[in-house]
Amino acid sequence: MNMLEPDKQNMPLQLLKHIRNFTEFKKEEFEKIQEYFDIQMYGKKDVILSAGSRCSFNYFVLEGCLHMFFTGENGIQRTVQFAIENWWMTDNLAYQKGGVTDFTIQGVENTTLLKISRENQEELLTKFPALEKYFRKIYEISYGASLMKMKYVFDYTKEEIYYHFTERFPQFTQRVPQYLIASYLGLTPEYVSEIRAKNRS
Amino acid sequence: MNMLEPDKQNMPLQLLKHIRNFTEFKKEEFEKIQEYFDIQMYGKKDVILSAGSRCSFNYFVLEGCLHMFFTGENGIQRTVQFAIENWWMTDNLAYQKGGVTDFTIQGVENTTLLKISRENQEELLTKFPALEKYFRKIYEISYGASLMKMKYVFDYTKEEIYYHFTERFPQFTQRVPQYLIASYLGLTPEYVSEIRAKNRS
Repeated sequence: MNMLEPDKQNMPLQLLKHIRNFTEFKKEEFEKIQEYFDIQMYGKKDVILSAGSRCSFNYFVLEGCLHMFFTGENGIQRTVQFAIENWWMTDNLAYQKGGVTDFTIQGVENTTLLKISRENQEELLTKFPALEKYFRKIYEISYGASLMKMKYVFDYTKEEIYYHFTERFPQFTQRVPQYLIASYLGLTPEYVSEIRAKNRS
Repeated sequence: MNMLEPDKQNMPLQLLKHIRNFTEFKKEEFEKIQEYFDIQMYGKKDVILSAGSRCSFNYFVLEGCLHMFFTGENGIQRTVQFAIENWWMTDNLAYQKGGVTDFTIQGVENTTLLKISRENQEELLTKFPALEKYFRKIYEISYGASLMKMKYVFDYTKEEIYYHFTERFPQFTQRVPQYLIASYLGLTPEYVSEIRAKNRS
């Protein structure tokens, strides 16, 4: 079997479990919705969505880690979002309109994901309206979290931002390279090295 | 009639119109959901939600303008969000958990709004599941927009941020005091004055 085209029969029940954290959904129904998704594997650093291309898919991480970044006019890449297991990721504004994205989505680790096209997601929600609640809650939490990020990016000192993040999300600090955490928090990699050196001493 | 308790019979059909921008919803159904909402009027600078209090309501602006801000440790207020006509506003993370908020919501202008409690919104969505789609789309757009804001706050120069915002949202520049726009964009009021002076000359 080609490693890049895993057997769809083995599609894990992880998404069902995640849906059930937010709303009721029957296993028999779940079996019917599997055809809406494709399962795909990507290597570390593989590009899943490219800036400048049409954003037609929404991605659910089964295993691994993705980040979404843009490249500034100065050529510097800036990460705006991470996704680990059970997180959805896309450029939501571009996805909603089927428009061109300014963002790139890339593997931070080898990653297995489910992808669904906009058309499929719309049809899925029409045929299985119980899933509207699931996505409503997912987006509500994501939006709330992004307002909170806005607060701590503006309010905290650089050192506080770093400690707040690493204490609140220790799994990221273990898994994600330091330069990506720095990029996400708006710090330079040098600054993060300095803080960590200070902390060790 | 008390100006602060407008006649609920007159509750405008503005919300119905807004719902219908995103999903189908019958006028007869809308008449049944009105009891879930309260209509309230606030003056300019009135506080609708206070930092440190429980966040139990979601607000829909019928007329006027609100902003949501936090007060930094240095005492400086920082606006993270505006809401004008047809925008929903709350601290979504605190609202979802019925938790205490770090944010304050205040009138930028005299504002008439609909408010709904978390319990009422949950019941509303259970009894009228067609509205799940409406809120899913609202939150999806809001989340996408906040990722985009993250991009331009990081990517643009201060001057570009200001021009991008004022060109894209001219209605805000007309209605919102300059110091609040500055706060939202992470600029000082003095800096905004400078840019505007430069532009006039």
